[in-house]
Amino acid sequence: VDALAVPSPVHVDLGGGVTSPRGFRAAGVACGIKRRPATATSAPLDLALIVTEAPVAAAAVFTTNRAVAAPVVVSREHLQRSGGRARAVVINSGCANAATGAAGMRVAHEMAAAVAEALGCAADQVLVASTGVIGVQLDIAKIRTGVGLAVRDLDARGSDAATRAIMTTDPFPKSCASSSRSIVVGGMAKGSGMIEPRMATMLGVLTTDAEVSAPVLAGALRRVADETFNAITVDGECSTNDCVFAMASGTSGVQITHDDDPALIEPMRDVAGHLAREIVRGGEGATRLVTVRISGAASHADAWLAARTVANSPLVKTAIHGGDPNWGRLVAAAGRSGAEFVLDRASVSIGTVPLFVAGVPHDERADDAARVLQAKEVVVTIDLGTGGSHSATMWTCDFSAEYVRINAEYRT
Amino acid sequence: VDALAVPSPVHVDLGGGVTSPRGFRAAGVACGIKRRPATATSAPLDLALIVTEAPVAAAAVFTTNRAVAAPVVVSREHLQRSGGRARAVVINSGCANAATGAAGMRVAHEMAAAVAEALGCAADQVLVASTGVIGVQLDIAKIRTGVGLAVRDLDARGSDAATRAIMTTDPFPKSCASSSRSIVVGGMAKGSGMIEPRMATMLGVLTTDAEVSAPVLAGALRRVADETFNAITVDGECSTNDCVFAMASGTSGVQITHDDDPALIEPMRDVAGHLAREIVRGGEGATRLVTVRISGAASHADAWLAARTVANSPLVKTAIHGGDPNWGRLVAAAGRSGAEFVLDRASVSIGTVPLFVAGVPHDERADDAARVLQAKEVVVTIDLGTGGSHSATMWTCDFSAEYVRINAEYRT
Repeated sequence: VDALAVPSPVHVDLGGGVTSPRGFRAAGVACGIKRRPATATSAPLDLALIVTEAPVAAAAVFTTNRAVAAPVVVSREHLQRSGGRARAVVINSGCANAATGAAGMRVAHEMAAAVAEALGCAADQVLVASTGVIGVQLDIAKIRTGVGLAVRDLDARGSDAATRAIMTTDPFPKSCASSSRSIVVGGMAKGSGMIEPRMATMLGVLTTDAEVSAPVLAGALRRVADETFNAITVDGECSTNDCVFAMASGTSGVQITHDDDPALIEPMRDVAGHLAREIVRGGEGATRLVTVRISGAASHADAWLAARTVANSPLVKTAIHGGDPNWGRLVAAAGRSGAEFVLDRASVSIGTVPLFVAGVPHDERADDAARVLQAKEVVVTIDLGTGGSHSATMWTCDFSAEYVRINAEYRT
Repeated sequence: VDALAVPSPVHVDLGGGVTSPRGFRAAGVACGIKRRPATATSAPLDLALIVTEAPVAAAAVFTTNRAVAAPVVVSREHLQRSGGRARAVVINSGCANAATGAAGMRVAHEMAAAVAEALGCAADQVLVASTGVIGVQLDIAKIRTGVGLAVRDLDARGSDAATRAIMTTDPFPKSCASSSRSIVVGGMAKGSGMIEPRMATMLGVLTTDAEVSAPVLAGALRRVADETFNAITVDGECSTNDCVFAMASGTSGVQITHDDDPALIEPMRDVAGHLAREIVRGGEGATRLVTVRISGAASHADAWLAARTVANSPLVKTAIHGGDPNWGRLVAAAGRSGAEFVLDRASVSIGTVPLFVAGVPHDERADDAARVLQAKEVVVTIDLGTGGSHSATMWTCDFSAEYVRINAEYRT
């Protein structure tokens, strides 16, 4: 039995979501952007709206891809212009509004304006996001219809519908809540189960009733995202549309003045960590959730470099898919990562089974490690052997023929 | 019809190899390191030897992986100690002698010493390489037997046997020769068709009859390797054992004094380029050879960064496997590479079919591009839109379910 477990959702309310903190209402509606599957009895939800009663502190982290979609440009502008105040997040699925040129920029602006008009706020207090097919224009008429329906449906129990409305081919919805002292944090996300043409887009929304300024919220979001959403990978791809929003309604009356205050950071980390791991678990073709732990790194950057390289290694991911305790691939991936690595002092374990200890193979434990690899959740640990004290943890999934099948299918 | 073709082997003699330049003899023998397949009628060749009559100029490029196998350490040492003089290269397949600790280092030294004794030269004039299973000790008794057999078999027509002896699960042998003015260059390589546990190892040997000093040969090898062996990828993995050796017998009497002299560089590039593309063509599960051309980059480093990211992108490689002219994935991969990228001025073509021109999609050409993707050789071109003049070309293969199947199989 593997004693090294993935963090359990013990602090997480799986029935909760973005409307768990007071001060938020949400809706998810169908407005015709997604095509209705031939077998479906109703139109798929494709527009989500989350609103507060008045402008509140807001923050975001965006994709590092230089090919950014129009809604990313608009949301970034709006947060700057408003000084981190927002009343709403609007998200459509079914069309990414990416690589759509000047026309796409106009549509993203009009999407925000439509929500602002309906709520009676400034356009720069509305954040927008899109996910779906790239290079196709987003139909603003459908968005206007959807916004009208969503504003009418807004509800303090609207989290489920909103969560479903941002899904593409995600195999399951991802939403939860957590609390610490008197602060509640809720969240929803969509992952890399993708739609045609299957550009992975990771979107997330975190809500809280903490009373916090925009800069402190932004700092907390950045800290939390680095350990959660930025610590996962399905295939190393980073989309044109990735973003995570945070909004703080302040309704708890609990003031947070430092971005490392555990009262806010801990429930945020619980929610974001759970959502991030759910994204990996729902990755295309994924059959196993893999935790990659790096220790003994000479620097923080080295620890992350090694973790990222191992977590994205096709040879590592196919070995884990095949249940093969192939420590040689783990050693080779860490070795090629660019991180400082001392082979003669390096160690590798699968679960709690040591397979390579200070440069010495322990192949007699291979069968034990193979048994560990039968589980749905697997932890691999690599000590880089430098004697350094830095470490990093990333989550990834295995790599199956199903991933190739899904992504090799012709679009049309 | 796609007018953009992969460089043709017009300057390459496909019947040639490492013994094409005068002054080299080679052999390939079976010494029991590889297991005999149940269906085989004879033992598989697993030891290659290439020798010159006297010590000659030699050079090498080695893996950048920090987990280096024992033979890499020994060959690097020998080149340093001998000042770039060598009489022989000995290579075994079936065992990588990697992650084998002090015992493995002793075996690598003894492997060189066995050849040196048989030839009557200094041990540091022998270069060694290994490819195969990682973490398993190499049996020096078998190597000694193999060296004895190989020395007896050395022949000026031994190129074919030597080429076969370094294969692992390569689907075909890779060898050729080329000439320019009075200089002949020959070469052989093995690629990323791998053996249990399928650690990709790229090995190559280039031979020439040019009269050239070791430093000039080393400079020429580095130049050529950067545009050929370092410009290919199957899955982004870089093994513990990768190396390419070059030896110059001087028998042509043609003196080369600069490492950029076309008389040497051009045939070296022809041979190395052909071998490199053959490695990609023989990649695990590969069905298409893909040339990735980056232009309009702001710097040399950016051009290579973008080329490498696109060439290793699972979404790009699965799309090409599926014959899907998915320019959005090409844009997104270039965008996330870290290279400067201007979406509104970027362009993408598949073959000669433009699909995205200065930020504007041309989806009406998708069917034309889909036809281009039916070919066994495909060129994709991405202009990063920065107005810069830097470019890079890399070769990769598509990504098939067969790759996953091969690499997910349990070792034993």
